[in-house]
Amino acid sequence: MILAARTIIPGDGKTVLKDQAVRVQDGRITAIGPLDSMRTGDEPVRDYGEATILPGLIDMHLHLAAWWSERDKPLYDDYLRGYFALDRAQRALWSGVTTVRDMNGPQNLCRQMVRAAQKGWISIPRISFCNQAITVTGGHTYYAVGGTVERDGPDEIRKEVRRQIRDGADWIKLMASHEDGLQEFTQEELNAAVDACHALGKKVAVHVAAQPALQMCIDAGVDTIEHGNFLTRQQALIMKEKGIAWVPTIYVYKFALAWFQQIAEKGDMDSDLAFAHHQVRRYQHYLSFYKNFLELADTGVTILAGTDMVYETSKVEASPVAKELACMVELGFDPLRAIATATSNGAKVLGMQDSIGVLKEGLLADILVVKGDASKEIACLEHTIDVFQEGRRVHRPQQST
Amino acid sequence: MILAARTIIPGDGKTVLKDQAVRVQDGRITAIGPLDSMRTGDEPVRDYGEATILPGLIDMHLHLAAWWSERDKPLYDDYLRGYFALDRAQRALWSGVTTVRDMNGPQNLCRQMVRAAQKGWISIPRISFCNQAITVTGGHTYYAVGGTVERDGPDEIRKEVRRQIRDGADWIKLMASHEDGLQEFTQEELNAAVDACHALGKKVAVHVAAQPALQMCIDAGVDTIEHGNFLTRQQALIMKEKGIAWVPTIYVYKFALAWFQQIAEKGDMDSDLAFAHHQVRRYQHYLSFYKNFLELADTGVTILAGTDMVYETSKVEASPVAKELACMVELGFDPLRAIATATSNGAKVLGMQDSIGVLKEGLLADILVVKGDASKEIACLEHTIDVFQEGRRVHRPQQST
Amino acid sequence: MILAARTIIPGDGKTVLKDQAVRVQDGRITAIGPLDSMRTGDEPVRDYGEATILPGLIDMHLHLAAWWSERDKPLYDDYLRGYFALDRAQRALWSGVTTVRDMNGPQNLCRQMVRAAQKGWISIPRISFCNQAITVTGGHTYYAVGGTVERDGPDEIRKEVRRQIRDGADWIKLMASHEDGLQEFTQEELNAAVDACHALGKKVAVHVAAQPALQMCIDAGVDTIEHGNFLTRQQALIMKEKGIAWVPTIYVYKFALAWFQQIAEKGDMDSDLAFAHHQVRRYQHYLSFYKNFLELADTGVTILAGTDMVYETSKVEASPVAKELACMVELGFDPLRAIATATSNGAKVLGMQDSIGVLKEGLLADILVVKGDASKEIACLEHTIDVFQEGRRVHRPQQST
Amino acid sequence: MILAARTIIPGDGKTVLKDQAVRVQDGRITAIGPLDSMRTGDEPVRDYGEATILPGLIDMHLHLAAWWSERDKPLYDDYLRGYFALDRAQRALWSGVTTVRDMNGPQNLCRQMVRAAQKGWISIPRISFCNQAITVTGGHTYYAVGGTVERDGPDEIRKEVRRQIRDGADWIKLMASHEDGLQEFTQEELNAAVDACHALGKKVAVHVAAQPALQMCIDAGVDTIEHGNFLTRQQALIMKEKGIAWVPTIYVYKFALAWFQQIAEKGDMDSDLAFAHHQVRRYQHYLSFYKNFLELADTGVTILAGTDMVYETSKVEASPVAKELACMVELGFDPLRAIATATSNGAKVLGMQDSIGVLKEGLLADILVVKGDASKEIACLEHTIDVFQEGRRVHRPQQST
Repeated sequence: MILAARTIIPGDGKTVLKDQAVRVQDGRITAIGPLDSMRTGDEPVRDYGEATILPGLIDMHLHLAAWWSERDKPLYDDYLRGYFALDRAQRALWSGVTTVRDMNGPQNLCRQMVRAAQKGWISIPRISFCNQAITVTGGHTYYAVGGTVERDGPDEIRKEVRRQIRDGADWIKLMASHEDGLQEFTQEELNAAVDACHALGKKVAVHVAAQPALQMCIDAGVDTIEHGNFLTRQQALIMKEKGIAWVPTIYVYKFALAWFQQIAEKGDMDSDLAFAHHQVRRYQHYLSFYKNFLELADTGVTILAGTDMVYETSKVEASPVAKELACMVELGFDPLRAIATATSNGAKVLGMQDSIGVLKEGLLADILVVKGDASKEIACLEHTIDVFQEGRRVHRPQQST
Repeated sequence: MILAARTIIPGDGKTVLKDQAVRVQDGRITAIGPLDSMRTGDEPVRDYGEATILPGLIDMHLHLAAWWSERDKPLYDDYLRGYFALDRAQRALWSGVTTVRDMNGPQNLCRQMVRAAQKGWISIPRISFCNQAITVTGGHTYYAVGGTVERDGPDEIRKEVRRQIRDGADWIKLMASHEDGLQEFTQEELNAAVDACHALGKKVAVHVAAQPALQMCIDAGVDTIEHGNFLTRQQALIMKEKGIAWVPTIYVYKFALAWFQQIAEKGDMDSDLAFAHHQVRRYQHYLSFYKNFLELADTGVTILAGTDMVYETSKVEASPVAKELACMVELGFDPLRAIATATSNGAKVLGMQDSIGVLKEGLLADILVVKGDASKEIACLEHTIDVFQEGRRVHRPQQST
Repeated sequence: MILAARTIIPGDGKTVLKDQAVRVQDGRITAIGPLDSMRTGDEPVRDYGEATILPGLIDMHLHLAAWWSERDKPLYDDYLRGYFALDRAQRALWSGVTTVRDMNGPQNLCRQMVRAAQKGWISIPRISFCNQAITVTGGHTYYAVGGTVERDGPDEIRKEVRRQIRDGADWIKLMASHEDGLQEFTQEELNAAVDACHALGKKVAVHVAAQPALQMCIDAGVDTIEHGNFLTRQQALIMKEKGIAWVPTIYVYKFALAWFQQIAEKGDMDSDLAFAHHQVRRYQHYLSFYKNFLELADTGVTILAGTDMVYETSKVEASPVAKELACMVELGFDPLRAIATATSNGAKVLGMQDSIGVLKEGLLADILVVKGDASKEIACLEHTIDVFQEGRRVHRPQQST
Repeated sequence: MILAARTIIPGDGKTVLKDQAVRVQDGRITAIGPLDSMRTGDEPVRDYGEATILPGLIDMHLHLAAWWSERDKPLYDDYLRGYFALDRAQRALWSGVTTVRDMNGPQNLCRQMVRAAQKGWISIPRISFCNQAITVTGGHTYYAVGGTVERDGPDEIRKEVRRQIRDGADWIKLMASHEDGLQEFTQEELNAAVDACHALGKKVAVHVAAQPALQMCIDAGVDTIEHGNFLTRQQALIMKEKGIAWVPTIYVYKFALAWFQQIAEKGDMDSDLAFAHHQVRRYQHYLSFYKNFLELADTGVTILAGTDMVYETSKVEASPVAKELACMVELGFDPLRAIATATSNGAKVLGMQDSIGVLKEGLLADILVVKGDASKEIACLEHTIDVFQEGRRVHRPQQST
C-alpha cells in the first residue's frame, strides 16, 4: 500500500516533505519518496491530495479508566469499568492517537486491555502504563479507590514499586504534591521510589505542581514531571541536564477553568458553588504560570504532549492531543515543534524510538492523515481523515443507516 | 432506506415473498411490498439481487463468557472475561445473530454488557440472560466457578432465584440432570424454583437430558427444556399443552463428537485419552436419540434454535445458528420451518414477539441478508452479506490494509 | 400545674369538653374539670383561651433515620446518622408528636436514642420500634443497606425475628409486596414470621400494597397493615374481626405525587425523568384507591395515622401527622374521628392504652395545645402553641438573638 | 442587640471596662462603648446590671467522648457515644464554653459533630480536634480502644499523622510519657510526627508529664505541651522562645486526688483499694510541682486553660474552665491573667485570633455573662447568666414543669 499527500511531516520537529509518498508493507514503513518512483503495477495507492501525513500521535498522559466522576458510578464494577475504558481507548485511536501512556487507573485494567488487543478481541492504541498511582496516606486523589494506593515510608513504597512492576507496570506514578500545593512525600520516600524502580529497569512519572516538591523530585532523579506548573528556568535547565522530561498538560487546565466557570456562573444542583469558585481561582492561578512556557522550553528540556482529560470523560474527546498541541502553538511553538512533542519526543521517553514516533523506513506504520497542511495550521489535526496502526486501517464504525 | 432482494423470508415458518422490498425508518420496518411501489425520489435503496432477506437470528442458548476451557484461563480476571465475552458477542452479531439468550455465565457480566451497549460503548446482540446457573451441590458444571452456584433445598433455591432476579436476570437456569444422566434436584426443589421465579414474573430454563429428571421438570412447569435428549413423544405432547418449549441443541453434540473423536484418534498432549473415548461413546449415544426429532416436533411442541458452543470458543463461530438449522433440515425440517425456530419461535418464548422475530410492519428492523435462496438451501445462512440491528448497519471492522 | 382552654378533646373519637381544665402533677393527669373547682392558691395556671388541648399525637409510621436520599449520604456514618435521626425526632416532638412508631432504620439506632433520652442527654418522643425491616432477597427496599435485611425461607425468617426481638425490637416489620405489586413472601414465610413474633409477645407490621399479598398477610394474622392501598371491603371486615389495624399513610402518597410531578415538569440534573414519569403514574394509580377510604373505615377496622415521610426528609416536617389527619377529613372523617387515629387508636395498638392516648385521670401528661377549635377545624393542628411530655414542657430552642 | 453590664473584661489579660456596652449585629461585635452613646430607638438592650461580660471561654483540653469510665460502657456503640458526647458538648456550651479543643476521642466523632452543627441539627461549642491520639505500643491509655492508636517507628507514625489529617484532624495528639513517668516515643519518632504534621500545615499537641520526654518534645518542636507537670524554668524559657504553649490542667489533678482519697477512705465495691492508694500518692506528688506555676508562667511562656475532665464525666461539669482558672488564681495569677488563658491565649494557639478570643469590634460575638465582678472574684465564672455564640443566645432547655 502506498499513501501519498501534498504534505508529509515525519515528526522530527523540523522536517516537512512535499509531494511524497509512504510505502507500507507488512505493518512497517518500507520507503518514503516521490510517488512516481514508488508506484508498481498492482500496489494500491491512496492519494489524499491536499492533506498531511504524519506519525500516529502519542498521548503521554491520559487516564483511560477515569470513571470516578460518572453520575452513575455506583453501577461500575470491573466489567463496566472495562467497557468504559475500551470506549475511551477506541475513540482515542479513531482520532489518530495510536499510542498512549496511561497515568493511573485500576490495577490490571490496562494490562488486560493489552492482552485483549493482542488476541484480536478489541482495537485500541498501543498502551504503556503504570497501574495504580502511589500517594501518601491522604495524599493527592487518595480517595480514588482502585486507582490510587496510599503508601508511606521508604520500605512500604519500595515494596509497592516492586509489586506494581511485578504486575506488569511499565511506569511508576507518584503523587508528590497536593492540589493545594502541599508537599507530600519526604525526600527519602521519593529517593526510595526512584531507586527501586530504576533497579528494575522501569521509569518514574511524578504528579507535581508546587515547590518544594518540584525540586525534591528533580533531586530524586525521576523521569518525567507531570504538570510541573510552577517550574523555574533553573529547574528546567537541570531537568535537561539530567534527562528529565516535562509533560505540561496545558489544555486540561484551560478546560477545567472553563468548566468550573460555567458551574460557578450557571449553578448546578449537584455542585458545591464555593468549591467551583475555589477551583476557578485555583486554575486561573495555575494557568498564569504557562506564560513562561516558551522560556522554559527553550532551555532544551524535553516537552511531551499529555491530555489528562478527567472531566466529562464520557462526553468530550478521550485524548485531545490536537488541542494540547494548539495550546503550545498559542504559547509560541511552531506547529512542527508542537507535533514533535506528540511523536518523536514521546517515542524516545517511552523507549520506543526504534519502533514508532517518526515516519522512517523500517519503523512501524502508525500513520495519521489529516485535512490541509498541518505544518502551517495546527488546527488541521482536528480533522482526521484516516488512521493506520501497524499498517491496519482503523475504522470508526458507521453509526447510522 | 429500502432493502430489496429476490427472496424475503418473513420468519413465520411458512411464507416466502419474491421480488419484494423492506422499508426501514427510524429503526423500524415501515413497509413490505414490491420495490417499485415503494421507491421515493431520494430514499437510498440497497438491492441485493439474488439474495435472501430474513429476520436477524435468535440464538436461544449460548454462553458468551464460556472462557473456562481457554488454555490461559489463569490469566482471566473480570476485565479479560469482559473482553472475551465482548469478542464473542460481536462475532455473533456480525454473523447475523441480533438477539441471544445467554444461558449462564459470571454474575453481572451480561447485565453490564447490556448497559455498555446502551451507552454506545460496544455493539452487540440484544441479550436476554440468566446470571449464574443453579445446580445442586456437585451438580452439572458445579466446577464452573463464577458461572454456576450450588444450592440445595427449597429454601436455598428460592433465595437464589430471588437473588438472581434482584440482580437483573430475565431467566432462571437450573441444572436438572447430570451429564451422565443422574437426576439432580428433587421435585420439591424444582417446584420451589419455578414458584419463586414465576411469582416475580420471570421464566425458568432447565438443562436436562435424561429421565426421570425430564418428567420432573415438565411436572414442575418450567418454561424451556434445554437439550432434552431423551424426550418421549408423550412428554412432547404434554409440553405442547403446558406451553413448554424445547431447545434441542443438536449441532453442539455433533461438534463435540467430532472433536473428541479427533482427540481420541490423534491424541493430544493435553488430553485424557480415556476421557475422550468415554465422551465419544456418550455423544454417539446422545446423538442416536435425535432420530426421533421430527416425530417429537410434529407433536406441535415449540422448537427453538440454540447453539451452546462451549468448545474451542475462541476459534469457532460464537453462535453457529446456521449450522444448528442445517442439522434440523438434515433431520427432516424444511428450511422455512428451521428458520422459524431461530426467529418467530424465539421471539415468542422471550416475550418479544411484538418487537422482533418476524419481518412485519411496525417491528424493529433486525435484518439479515444472505447469499442465494435460503428457503431452498439452508446453507445460504452461512454466507452473510449484511446485518442490521434496529436499522443500524452492523460492520465487521476490516482486518487488513 | 393547671392547663385550661376553651376546647378540650380527650381523644376518644367522640367527646369534646368546653371550658374545662386539666391538672398535671408529677408527670400525670390528676384531674379534668371546670377550672374554678380546680384552682388552689398557689398552683400555676396556664389558661390558653380560645385554644384546644388534646393528647400528644402518635405517629404510627415514620422513619426517623431516613437518610438514604440525602445528597451527601456518602458522608453518613453511625455518628451522623445518629444526629440526623435526633434532629427529626426533636422536630417531631416540638410539633406535638409525643410518641412515634419507627417503622425501620439502622439496627440499634432507635434503641440507643431511647437510652440517651432516659439518661437525659436528648429530648425526643417516646419511641416504639422495629429495627431493620425483613424483606426477601431482592424485595422491597432491599437496597437500603443498614435498614433492611434479606431473609428467605421460614427458618431464616424465624431466626431473624428472634434476633430483632433479642436486640430490643417492639415490632417486626415485614415487606410483603413490592413497589410494583409483586408478591414477595410465600404464605409459609409470612406464617413463620407471625408465629415467631407472637410467641415472644411482640407484634407484626407489614408493608403491603397489592393483592394477593394483602390477603396472605391477613390470613397470616399480622397486627397492622401498612399502606394496604388496594384493600377490599371484604378484607377490611375480616381485619376488624381479627383485630388487624390499618395505617393508610395517605398524605405521603399525595406528597410523593406532587414531588415527582414537579421533577417531571421542571427536570432535575440528577433525576431520571423516565423514572419520575413512572412514579407520577404509579402514585396517581395508588391515590385513586383512597376514594374507598370511608367505606373501608366504616367496616369498623381500626384506622391509624402514619406519616412515612421519606422524601426531602431534612426539609419538610419530620412527622406531618396534622396533614395526615387533614387527608382523612377530606375523605369524609369528622375531626374527632381523625384525631382518634393519632391518639386513642394508636395507644391501643401499641399496648399503651393505660399510659397515653387519651386525656384521663391517671394517665401520663402527654399534652398538645393548638390554636383555635380543632374539633371544628382540623387545620388547627398545624398551629402548635405548647407541648408537654409526661408533664415537662417541651421547647423548641430559640433560633435568633 | 446591645448587651450592657457594670464590668466588661475584653480578655486580653489586662483591660477592664466599666459601665460600657457591646453591640452585636449579624453574629459579630460591631461596637464597644458607653451604653448611652450606643442606644438607638428600636434596638433591644439587655442590661445585666452588676454582672460581667467577657468572651466565651475556650477549653484547650477536653475529651467530649470520654465514655470509657461509664459503668454501663458495654452498651456503648457509635450511636450512644455520639449522644454521650453531644450531652457533654451541650453542657459545656450552656456553661459559657463556646470553643473547645478536643484532645482525643473516637475517630470521626468530632468531625461529625461539627457537620451536624453546621446542618443545624445540634447546638454545641466550636470544636478544634485531633481524632485518635497516637501512642507507642503499650503507651499512655493504649487501652482506650477507639480513642488511641498504637504506632511505632518513624514510618508508622508518619503514616498515622497523614491519616489523621486526611480524616479532618486540626491537631495531632501524641502521648509522650506514661502516667508513671516513663518516656515513650524515641526522639526520631517525635521528630517524624512533628515533621509530617507541619508539612501538612497542622499542629502537634503532646501529653507529657516527665523528663526526659519533656525535653525531647521541646527539642522536636511541638506546638503545645499538655500537663508538663515537671517542667523546669529553663525549659519554660525555651518554650517561650520556640513558641510552644503550656496547658497545665491543674484542676483535674486536684479533682482526681480528692476522688481517689474518697475511694481510699470509704472503700467502694467496684474499686481496687491498692490502686486508689497508689493514685493518691501519685497525684499528691504531681500536685506538689504546681508550687512552681507562677515562676514558670513568669518566663512568658503562653499558658492555656484546659480541663481534661475524664472522671465522673456524666455527673460533673463537662468543661470546668471556671475551676481551672480558680486554681491559677490560687497559685498567684490575678483573675484577668487567668481569664486570658481561656480567651485570647487560646484563640492565638488555635490560629483563630482574628475571629474569637477577645471582645473587639469585628470579631464573632461569642459572649459570656456572669454574676458579679469577675475581675475581682474569679468564682463569679461559676454563675452563668447568659451565653451567646456568634450572636445567637444559647439556652439550656427548661427541665421541669
